[in-house]
Amino acid sequence: MGALHQGHLSLIHQAKAHNHRILASIFINPLQFNNPQDLALYPQTPEQDLALLEKTACDAVYMPTYEDVYAEAVPESFYFGDLERVLEGSFRPGHFQGVAKVLYRFFKDVNPQTVVLGLKDFQQFTIVKELSRQFFPEIDIEGAPTLRDEQGLAMSSRNQRLSQAEYKQAVQVANAFSLASQARFGQSFEHWKHNVLELCSKLPDISVEYLELGNPINLSPVLDWNSNQESIVLIAFYAGQTRLIDNVILPTN
Amino acid sequence: MGALHQGHLSLIHQAKAHNHRILASIFINPLQFNNPQDLALYPQTPEQDLALLEKTACDAVYMPTYEDVYAEAVPESFYFGDLERVLEGSFRPGHFQGVAKVLYRFFKDVNPQTVVLGLKDFQQFTIVKELSRQFFPEIDIEGAPTLRDEQGLAMSSRNQRLSQAEYKQAVQVANAFSLASQARFGQSFEHWKHNVLELCSKLPDISVEYLELGNPINLSPVLDWNSNQESIVLIAFYAGQTRLIDNVILPTN
Repeated sequence: MGALHQGHLSLIHQAKAHNHRILASIFINPLQFNNPQDLALYPQTPEQDLALLEKTACDAVYMPTYEDVYAEAVPESFYFGDLERVLEGSFRPGHFQGVAKVLYRFFKDVNPQTVVLGLKDFQQFTIVKELSRQFFPEIDIEGAPTLRDEQGLAMSSRNQRLSQAEYKQAVQVANAFSLASQARFGQSFEHWKHNVLELCSKLPDISVEYLELGNPINLSPVLDWNSNQESIVLIAFYAGQTRLIDNVILPTN
Repeated sequence: MGALHQGHLSLIHQAKAHNHRILASIFINPLQFNNPQDLALYPQTPEQDLALLEKTACDAVYMPTYEDVYAEAVPESFYFGDLERVLEGSFRPGHFQGVAKVLYRFFKDVNPQTVVLGLKDFQQFTIVKELSRQFFPEIDIEGAPTLRDEQGLAMSSRNQRLSQAEYKQAVQVANAFSLASQARFGQSFEHWKHNVLELCSKLPDISVEYLELGNPINLSPVLDWNSNQESIVLIAFYAGQTRLIDNVILPTN
């Protein structure tokens, strides 16, 4: 969706390993915004984006208009079961239907061999894998690790909307959150969650939407972390008016 | 939403009677399209629109961008009860929420004395009256009669998408439909409806979504037409890929 940062550029770097030709898409997809204000305030920096892409291994950029994408029909609705109802799905109704619609068209129009997606949007990644399984089994969906800035905040186009005070508080949340990978050896998930939420409640501009532990295959709830079973901790929170998400995958030992 | 025709210009003519200054808005509101393809194919003729408005009594034109309209918050949802669930509401989920959101912002930003709306979109007219009653009681909402072309088809920006064959069939529907005002003196609504649907079933490019009789105050269903009680007949149908609506108000005798 443009407003490119190092996280996006790392996707291209990862794609290069396949020796395919690389296409980047830049398209702010109105259908995946459930809040009109969020869409209106979404950062748009097309000239800067193209200048950044020039310096990468990217071979071409696809910047369609709304008409280019949606003049041909897309399915009216996709079935993702609980995957689109939990977490992001419950706070952003319709969001993943919009994601599926735009990617259905992109996959039809572009016919890629491999699609590289950031794992910061982990639930989106699982939704796209399911979309591929149902409609495009020949396309390989590949996740790319989340990049963090020097303070530890997961890179996101939305970060540029943060005030200095909001940024500092978001960093505090991110750092407490990232300790999950160690905390799991000393305390229960519920205990740790309680502590993180308590910290967040003291930060005036932070408001947490969810902080949950899930199964990384289908995001179904997991009661406690357990070093015999892979799990993922996911968070969504507001810093001021800006909604941010993050996650940490907890591997088996 | 632009793609102006004589029906739009008649709104300005009617507004002139108030001796107010007249503002026309042209804004294709993505939030009121429940089908992305319908939005992508919606006709856009901005230069022609401005040339047409130049020749009217219109004093100014408001052509905002999406960002202009939605960078400030709008209510997340409006309550219209059954009014947004029947007829158009049942076939276009979310449509009237989108209409209410854009008009909420326009009314806040423009603060008009009188708003003139076409009665072709009758259910929209009742929704806007309800929006005004709840949030803007000082604004007067005024309906303007539907204009028809020389063949009898209600004017609509969507008409320009019809092929010749589709247009001819749409005219046949419109003419059968408009006979409601006479038919009500000789037969029951159900009998007449049956005949109109039978005619439509013989037109290869026509598919009727609904043909209903309602109370013009709140659009609740009415069982039969009755010359002691005002009612309204409403139709929505596809001519090919193009969705058209029409209505006839049946006054008391």
